[in-house]
This record gives sequence, C-alpha cells and structure tokens, in this order.
Amino acid sequence: MDLLDGLATTRAIRRYRPDPIPEDDLAAMLWHATRAPSGSNRQPARFLVLRDGPAATEAKALLGEAYRAGWGAKRDTHGFDRGSGADPDSPKARAAQAMQAYVDRFEQTPVVVLACIERWRAPHISEGASVYPACQNLLLAARALGYGGVLSMWHGFVEVDLRRVLRIPDEVVIAATITLGVPEGRHGPVRRLPLGEVVYEDTWGGPAPWAVDPPDTRFSSAGPRSEA
Amino acid sequence: MDLLDGLATTRAIRRYRPDPIPEDDLAAMLWHATRAPSGSNRQPARFLVLRDGPAATEAKALLGEAYRAGWGAKRDTHGFDRGSGADPDSPKARAAQAMQAYVDRFEQTPVVVLACIERWRAPHISEGASVYPACQNLLLAARALGYGGVLSMWHGFVEVDLRRVLRIPDEVVIAATITLGVPEGRHGPVRRLPLGEVVYEDTWGGPAPWAVDPPDTRFSSAGPRSEA
Repeated sequence: MDLLDGLATTRAIRRYRPDPIPEDDLAAMLWHATRAPSGSNRQPARFLVLRDGPAATEAKALLGEAYRAGWGAKRDTHGFDRGSGADPDSPKARAAQAMQAYVDRFEQTPVVVLACIERWRAPHISEGASVYPACQNLLLAARALGYGGVLSMWHGFVEVDLRRVLRIPDEVVIAATITLGVPEGRHGPVRRLPLGEVVYEDTWGGPAPWAVDPPDTRFSSAGPRSEA
Repeated sequence: MDLLDGLATTRAIRRYRPDPIPEDDLAAMLWHATRAPSGSNRQPARFLVLRDGPAATEAKALLGEAYRAGWGAKRDTHGFDRGSGADPDSPKARAAQAMQAYVDRFEQTPVVVLACIERWRAPHISEGASVYPACQNLLLAARALGYGGVLSMWHGFVEVDLRRVLRIPDEVVIAATITLGVPEGRHGPVRRLPLGEVVYEDTWGGPAPWAVDPPDTRFSSAGPRSEA
C-alpha cells in the first residue's frame, strides 16, 4: 500500500473477524510502531500485548465491563438515541449500533495492546508526543498488513483492578488501549472537517487560502465537546 | 513510497535546503495530517503555519532564540561535550554539531507549523491522542513528498511572547512546533531499542519471545531521562 493512501484511508475499525493475528504480523506492527519518534529519543513507550494468557483473559473481562460502562454513559450523554438517532437507519443510530456491538464483543477482540509510558517527569502534554505517534504508526502498520484497530481511553473505568491483574507499576501511565483484528464487513471513508477550518497562516485564525481539500474528500462536523 | 517503508524510515530531519515548500505540497501534507484520528472525532487540532508573513517572521525570530536557549541548556545538562563528546568525530559530537546548526539557522527554516489544540477539558494525557497522531501523519506525509521535519517543544521558552505575536488565545495549547523543509545532505537510519525490551505480553515485563526485530535493524540505547 502506498504511504499517502495509507495515511488517507486508515480509519477506526471496531468490527473484527474472530481470526487471531499471527505472531509475525503482530511483531511487524509493533516494530513499525516503535520506529516513531520520541522526545530526545528517550523511548519511554512500552506495549503490553493481551491475547489469551491467564492475565490477559482476566484483563479483557475487566476491559469489557469498562467499555460497556463507558459506551453506555456516552450513548446517553451524547444523545445517540435522541433526535435523528431515534430513526434506526440514521447515521447516528448506525454508529450507536456499531459501538454497542464493539463493546458487547470486547472479550472476543483478537489482540488488545495497552500503550504505556514510564513517566519521567511531571505530567505535561508533551509526554503524549512520546507515545501517540507510535500508536498512530501501529494503526497504520495494521492497515498495511490487512488489519484494523482503534484507540480509546475507557480502561480508566477499571484502572485500579487492571493494574493489579497486569502488575503495572504505579509510575507507568496507561496512555491508550488499542484493539486490533481483521476487519469484518464494510467501513465508510474517513470524514473530517474541511481543511480550511483547521489550518491557519501567520496568526491564529489567519486565512490559508491554499489549504484546500482534494476532490472527493468526505467531510464531517466536529465531534462532541461535552465529555468531562 | 510504500506505507511500511515510510513508517520504518521516517526520521527526524533538521538540515534543510533553502527551497520553499510549494503550497500544493503543504496543503497535501496538512490534509494527510488531518486524516488522523481524535477522541470522538472531536478534531480539536489546529495547525498554524509560519512562512514569511510579518507575524511569522517575528515568531520565527522568537523561536530561534528559544531553540538556541533550549539546545544550549540541553547540550550542557546532557553532557554533549563531555566523555566521548570531547572527540569531534564521535557520534555524540556529530549529533551536537547537527543540533547546533539546526538552531543557528532556525530563522531560515522554510516552514514552521505550530500544532495546537483547543482544550475542551482539564489537562489529561489523553488530549495528546487528539493531536500527536496528526503530527506523526504530517511527518510521514512530508517524507512521502520528499520533505522532512522534526517535532519539538522548545517554544516553551518564549511562549508568552509567541502567543502575543501570533494572537493565540489562552485556552489553546501549543502541543508541538514542527519544522519542515527539503532534506539537505545524508541522514542516518532510525535507531531504536530492541523490540523485546519495549514489548511485553500478558503482564508488565512478561516476555514476548515473538517480538523480534527484522534483520538489519539498527539499535540505540534509550535517550536521557534527566530532563526536568
């Protein structure tokens, strides 16, 4: 797959076939993830892979609970069943169905990766610059190899138990939970805000008239900002 | 360029030819950046492009000062001129020369992009998950199109003045400063820790014997952890 095509078409994948991921492919994905940069090449990111070991099985059950709780709360606070969501064929209702199926089947997710960092200083936004580029490389490498995945933060609902089961030390931050598998069914295109709404030049809000989307770009509005 | 090759070979580029970046290429890089995911597709990332406008010129001068101060402090605290660094042909001394040239020529950097987010809740590591994947896509797209760049955080040294000059609102976080240009000269390969040192399975520290590097992988040690 072409690099630019991969960047343009990698999207969140939440429906997986039950097929496991061969270890060679998993190693290749993680190797490409770890080519990403980090501050001072400090490489604080660590990747804890959960498949079907005893701790992994227990952790996946905890995460399944967490994901169902997290989605249940979001479904409500973001009004997925109200307005256009009341029509089961609306995009909103279909998004809700897909999320519900994802969390309901969480325990069957072929591979879960916890992307963590060993914290080396006080919390600061920049620590994310040493782990999330690797997460993005992981998702892009998955796409190159015929897999798909998505990053989320719902481990927060069960973090105390999860740390105990997986023996994650206190100084380690769980930066993301990434689920991976072979995509099942069809998935729509990536949709984003028009480029001119997010690119400025010279000053904040300054117009960048050259920042135009290629033909056939599909758009979205900005997602909800209501989350706590 | 192949997607996996791009992931494997994109490295920090700090030496640029003076050539400007055509607007079409700049738009393409930013468009691919904005295909990256964000939490709930909320898309809080904004990209402020600095080329040769009046505010950009002033901002680049401020950033040049900041980068020289930042590198000066790091050169000292990380001991770049001590130990093996005393030999001007050592890898450490050559890294220091490259960094010095980068900061000395900062004002000539063809394009500087400030990747920002509009903060929508209290600071949390997860906000980085809505901007750093886009930064990584930007650097990967740059590679695909024959450019190179690097992400750093030294804007912090001049942030008050920078915000004033660029009219950046208080609720906006500057998540990264990314410099971009046509690479000049030769650059070495990506070097990282062996995969087995950063991938665990089933529990924290649990061995993942399948997590092996491909042949010809080049390695590094972990960078310094001494930074405040």
